[in-house]
Amino acid sequence: MKQQLSVITLPVNDLAVTRRFYCDGLGWQPVFINDEVMFIQLNGLVMSFFHRVAYEQDAGVDYRPGGHTCVLSHNVASPAEVDAVYAEALAAGAQPQKGPAKTPWGGYAGHFRDPDEHLWEIAHNPAWPISPEGYVTCIAPE
Amino acid sequence: MKQQLSVITLPVNDLAVTRRFYCDGLGWQPVFINDEVMFIQLNGLVMSFFHRVAYEQDAGVDYRPGGHTCVLSHNVASPAEVDAVYAEALAAGAQPQKGPAKTPWGGYAGHFRDPDEHLWEIAHNPAWPISPEGYVTCIAPE
Repeated sequence: MKQQLSVITLPVNDLAVTRRFYCDGLGWQPVFINDEVMFIQLNGLVMSFFHRVAYEQDAGVDYRPGGHTCVLSHNVASPAEVDAVYAEALAAGAQPQKGPAKTPWGGYAGHFRDPDEHLWEIAHNPAWPISPEGYVTCIAPE
Repeated sequence: MKQQLSVITLPVNDLAVTRRFYCDGLGWQPVFINDEVMFIQLNGLVMSFFHRVAYEQDAGVDYRPGGHTCVLSHNVASPAEVDAVYAEALAAGAQPQKGPAKTPWGGYAGHFRDPDEHLWEIAHNPAWPISPEGYVTCIAPE
């Protein structure tokens, strides 16, 4: 199995709410949206927001909102940009989880929750380069 | 906020178990591993496996294993490759969730659970190109 993630799918309760937050609020452009699914092109992978009923049928699982089984990090170029994006997310309707602050690993980050309790971290990691296309390179800590 | 995902962090109970599954079993090469965290370089983003205690402290959340708040899809070039990777994952110790089969969207996919109940889908989506580097392009359904 190659070290590749192609699609990340997040269950949501109401695609209209999802669209309002990510598209109207954060300015994201969907490749496709209907009442069941919204596809967003990210840096080398796809984000899929899937209505929870279809999501549960598709994977054959019970979904428990707020289970927090993953954190999605959006890295930016500076602490000031963390503050700006975090404020933008709250203005779009995100719930604050942990406000931006210095981290034990030498960075600066804050966490918020989207309308379906999915956790995002806005982070500045000075050790990990980001290309103009948004591709991130992992560097081992010293 | 740009349409970018930089890091996906998954909480785990025991990094030794995580390493056995992903590295010994699936052949993944970590950039870094210790008792608390393992970093894997993926296609333009980083996968971080984080010990659940540190994960909960870092994000300030309660984590509920098996909450299934996301599905991670690994896309491959053919149905035969889905079968092969799915079998490889089971041989490495994955738990079958939903065996490979044709999907309503014209593809072929199967789901398994990793040792911490994180859900993976191995999928062939004939409509979405994958570059040699593993970058996936989202195409709207017709």
